[in-house]
Amino acid sequence: MGEITATIEKMILTLIEERKFATLRDVMNTMAPPDVAALLEEIPGERISLLFRLLSKELAAEVFVEMDADVQEILIRGFSDSELREVVNELYVDDAVDIIEEMPANVVKRILKQTDPEMRKMINEILKYPDDSAGSIMTTEYVSFKPDLTVSEAIKNLRRSGVDKETIYSCYVTEKDRKLIGIVTVRRLLMADDDDCIRDIMEENVLSVNTEDDREDVANKFAKYGLLAFPVVDSENRLVGIVTIDDAIDVIREEATEDIEKMAAITPTDKPYLKTSAFELWKARIPWLLLLMLSSTFTGIIITQFESALAATGVLAAYIPMLMGTGGNSGSQASVAVIRGLSLDEIEFCDMFRVQWKEIRVSVMCGITLAAANFVKLLLLDRVGTSVAFVVSLALAVTVVTAKFVGCSLPILSKKIGFDPAVMASPFITTIVDSISLLIYFYFASILL
Amino acid sequence: MGEITATIEKMILTLIEERKFATLRDVMNTMAPPDVAALLEEIPGERISLLFRLLSKELAAEVFVEMDADVQEILIRGFSDSELREVVNELYVDDAVDIIEEMPANVVKRILKQTDPEMRKMINEILKYPDDSAGSIMTTEYVSFKPDLTVSEAIKNLRRSGVDKETIYSCYVTEKDRKLIGIVTVRRLLMADDDDCIRDIMEENVLSVNTEDDREDVANKFAKYGLLAFPVVDSENRLVGIVTIDDAIDVIREEATEDIEKMAAITPTDKPYLKTSAFELWKARIPWLLLLMLSSTFTGIIITQFESALAATGVLAAYIPMLMGTGGNSGSQASVAVIRGLSLDEIEFCDMFRVQWKEIRVSVMCGITLAAANFVKLLLLDRVGTSVAFVVSLALAVTVVTAKFVGCSLPILSKKIGFDPAVMASPFITTIVDSISLLIYFYFASILL
Repeated sequence: MGEITATIEKMILTLIEERKFATLRDVMNTMAPPDVAALLEEIPGERISLLFRLLSKELAAEVFVEMDADVQEILIRGFSDSELREVVNELYVDDAVDIIEEMPANVVKRILKQTDPEMRKMINEILKYPDDSAGSIMTTEYVSFKPDLTVSEAIKNLRRSGVDKETIYSCYVTEKDRKLIGIVTVRRLLMADDDDCIRDIMEENVLSVNTEDDREDVANKFAKYGLLAFPVVDSENRLVGIVTIDDAIDVIREEATEDIEKMAAITPTDKPYLKTSAFELWKARIPWLLLLMLSSTFTGIIITQFESALAATGVLAAYIPMLMGTGGNSGSQASVAVIRGLSLDEIEFCDMFRVQWKEIRVSVMCGITLAAANFVKLLLLDRVGTSVAFVVSLALAVTVVTAKFVGCSLPILSKKIGFDPAVMASPFITTIVDSISLLIYFYFASILL
Repeated sequence: MGEITATIEKMILTLIEERKFATLRDVMNTMAPPDVAALLEEIPGERISLLFRLLSKELAAEVFVEMDADVQEILIRGFSDSELREVVNELYVDDAVDIIEEMPANVVKRILKQTDPEMRKMINEILKYPDDSAGSIMTTEYVSFKPDLTVSEAIKNLRRSGVDKETIYSCYVTEKDRKLIGIVTVRRLLMADDDDCIRDIMEENVLSVNTEDDREDVANKFAKYGLLAFPVVDSENRLVGIVTIDDAIDVIREEATEDIEKMAAITPTDKPYLKTSAFELWKARIPWLLLLMLSSTFTGIIITQFESALAATGVLAAYIPMLMGTGGNSGSQASVAVIRGLSLDEIEFCDMFRVQWKEIRVSVMCGITLAAANFVKLLLLDRVGTSVAFVVSLALAVTVVTAKFVGCSLPILSKKIGFDPAVMASPFITTIVDSISLLIYFYFASILL
């Protein structure tokens, strides 16, 4: 939280002390829901419920959605049945589902008991779709028209029913059996004549997603096509819900964070850093550190194997960190570029040879540049013999080429066989590249020196 | 490009061969603009212009926007003046600016010459804002109302003028001098009574951004507040444009990619991987590799300094890769988590001590776990002496704590003094941590062995 929030927080606490509840209500009603939520989360426990009750019914629901699951749970436990009913039934269905997914079983039971039957049905509908699928992030509150309506009838419908729908800007045209046959934006409705028939003004080439589609693919579609919502259909093209762009933004940010965490050998969590306890951070990090520590045993074994060579020409050991470091950096440059391309749908399996061919050219250029710079440095600064400088530089060039080749190939291959490319990233590739670079180095040293 | 696109591409090429232009037109008109653009980009040079001329005027502009700058340039060079005029004046202003920014000077001159005077004025308006600012990604085509309009007049206005505006769903209310005083969504307009006055139904607490704001901060606001557009105001709260959510999505993806590239020691480019030439990739990667190679000289110097200690107890060298690797991984776990938190506005400078205190606790837990596992492994598997196992494990624990502390502090500090936190990430921190871990290791070895 920033300094401004801290100032407001102090103000709010003072107002609570002075029991100026009317002022508090006025102040909070001028704020946007996410700001009210951030503020309430900074307020000590027993006063949250007090402040929350001051919010208007509509604002209360919007603020509730923006809060962290643990604060939501505290509030729910403090609600009377009628208070809970009021908040829950004011929520959009997809938000209600998000909240329910984070709550313990007994709280979920209480929430569902206070939910209107129609809404409960929609919630259960969404809950049955697998995590990370389009079905799990959709909402079932959308506007649909029959194709025979006129524009003025449609606008009248919209004005009557639109308040409850999450987005009214994309309206879907369905036949009997809920089969999706077209889409009409409010923009097109407003621009059309009152007597036009929906069937004549609707867009028939509808881009839709399937309930089972991966939510990351859905988010990429938003970026590609620039739409505000996508209809979600089942396997028989029946409209079952819509995904809106605000959910897509959350997915894009979460997926990028997950990729970044995996590349840095962290098990992804969906909590913000400051809200994650030290113990949870330890749990997310320690398995990878242990695994990587054990796998670096390989490099240790290789060095031990060549102990005598090392002891004889002591100078060689000094270049191990440089070789391994440069190899690791080269490999992760390639792997990270490819992993990001895979995530953004820019690279597919059929592009593998193009990627490898590109990386071979890049790595040869990088290898030559680095080896040349290193050779000059070894001769002029370190003043080692020409043969040592040659061995180190040659090993460096070969390491860079190998590292980039391994780095670009592994993520594509691992995606093909169903593993997560980001998990294969920097740390694993580094371990492999480390071993290879040492073997190359000692091989050249043993035949050339 | 996927397999499906390859099939369509073959179909299109066959249709061109057979000169079935009517069929081609029909086929392309069923496709979404980004798909037509992707298709055209796969078609050999001289035929692009041929196919492009088959598109309807409206589709042509939408397709043009989605193409890569180099293909756009080829098309423009092939356009007659009247063709160019038709495409350019059909574009949204912000898209026109994006295109102009990528073109060489002589092409820009030709484009501006064919642009309507009013549009040219708007383009020049946007071009004057610095890169990466809210002003540079905004559009000046928005809907604004005077506060005294009634709802029915406003809807009438909208129906007359809305076609040219990029988004009509957020309408802004301005006083004389273009001062922004409120916002009305189309949803609220439709739900209100015909005779209501705009002033009475508008939302007065308007969230806006400033022309000079960083575009990443603007994108974070979209994620936080879930709005479809933000008004952009100058320092005197005069409305100058709007930023729409589709641009925010592009920014979120680009900024995440930039962060990832910087963490992997790559100079960010905004081209997709497969469209970047090997030479450009080399240019983006080699400076960092050279810099990091030279900086790893430090670790080489340290090893050389302790050459005699190494030669005496040869076993010690075998654990250098494990120590440096684990230190590097521990440090980048911390730095990457903090850098991502900074990008998402979850962590600010005033949180530094909270972050450091959290990392100290996490690192002590990680350090103890790793040292214990390592100690047992050294005794049972490697069968080294207790004192060697103790030295290695102690150095490991101290390295992990140091690495995480350096890793979490450097990004926050570098952001505070105005450097990019992501540039300070993994590779730099690794170099620092490598040196420190070696010094710790040799220090413990020299006093304890």
